[in-house]
Amino acid sequence: GKASDSGVVYGHRGMTLEEDLNVSNRYYIETDQAVIYKKPTPIQIVHVDYPKRSAAKITEAYFRKASTTDYNGIYRGRYIDFEAKETTHAHYIPLKNFHAHQVEHMKRIKRHGGIGFIIVKFTQTAEIFLLDSDYLANYWVASMKGGRKSMPKQLFMDHGHLIPQNYLPRIDYLRVVNKVYF
Amino acid sequence: GKASDSGVVYGHRGMTLEEDLNVSNRYYIETDQAVIYKKPTPIQIVHVDYPKRSAAKITEAYFRKASTTDYNGIYRGRYIDFEAKETTHAHYIPLKNFHAHQVEHMKRIKRHGGIGFIIVKFTQTAEIFLLDSDYLANYWVASMKGGRKSMPKQLFMDHGHLIPQNYLPRIDYLRVVNKVYF
Ligand SMILES: [Mg+2]
Ligand SMILES: [Mg+2]
Repeated sequence: GKASDSGVVYGHRGMTLEEDLNVSNRYYIETDQAVIYKKPTPIQIVHVDYPKRSAAKITEAYFRKASTTDYNGIYRGRYIDFEAKETTHAHYIPLKNFHAHQVEHMKRIKRHGGIGFIIVKFTQTAEIFLLDSDYLANYWVASMKGGRKSMPKQLFMDHGHLIPQNYLPRIDYLRVVNKVYF
Repeated sequence: GKASDSGVVYGHRGMTLEEDLNVSNRYYIETDQAVIYKKPTPIQIVHVDYPKRSAAKITEAYFRKASTTDYNGIYRGRYIDFEAKETTHAHYIPLKNFHAHQVEHMKRIKRHGGIGFIIVKFTQTAEIFLLDSDYLANYWVASMKGGRKSMPKQLFMDHGHLIPQNYLPRIDYLRVVNKVYF
């Protein structure tokens, strides 16, 4: 990675946020810090072939919309739940990156005592922020009432937390979780 | 459903354990008691067609082995994790119904303060038991050392808990969780 003006190392520009989070989660599991996984992509299976002497082959299937967020697990005894998204826009992330089901899901998680947040990567600068899911819920409701259809980067700078990026773990979001939720 | 000798109503004999659990989890969500979902089946996608004016179609994919359990979520502020299996054997469930990865995963969950158990349905009698995952872990280790390759039904009767079956929720496992873990 190369050093930015601020001295932060922004590496792995070729990796997607999801890949980097998967590697980070694996590191957290291997070092026994947390047990957090990305859920598999939900698929509607229509047809499966069962050839003799080889593995079952799915020959017709379709992507389904997730009813929950992509990531969940346990950390320091607490239930953790989050959604991760990239935005190519320099100054905002469109709300259409999220689904109504996901916003509702995160509200439920909070109500039941869990920790819920979003992780958003602004790809132009490679900055990654953690923002509590209450902010997403509030912007979502406001947009339904005619408000803006995106969350400005300024919101992340004012109320979110820049996540440190390293070699291992690549995206050290639990360091931020320690500060914000414990 | 029809009444058994013991007076318990065993209904929905045509439904699989998974279907009944999904309906029960939906009921728990709708009544705002818990937020627990079955994870999607993990699929290795090899080829996707993107036809014009219609949905992306997966034309080649394969089933992958799950590295975690099938169900997780939050209940009364606690992280919940379990695996559900049916056995057609009257007196035992073979350990090969579980994978080493799942046993290891449940050990981690316990270590980090979560609640972990298995739900096993003995299909011949339609009885469904909840058993703490520590018992599975112990039988697993013993089998590696030459011990028996199955868990006897007697284990479930002595150390597990019969789950009440009703109309709604069909499999009221949270009632058992209340007693065992809170
Ligand atoms: Mg997603
Ligand atoms: Mg399974």
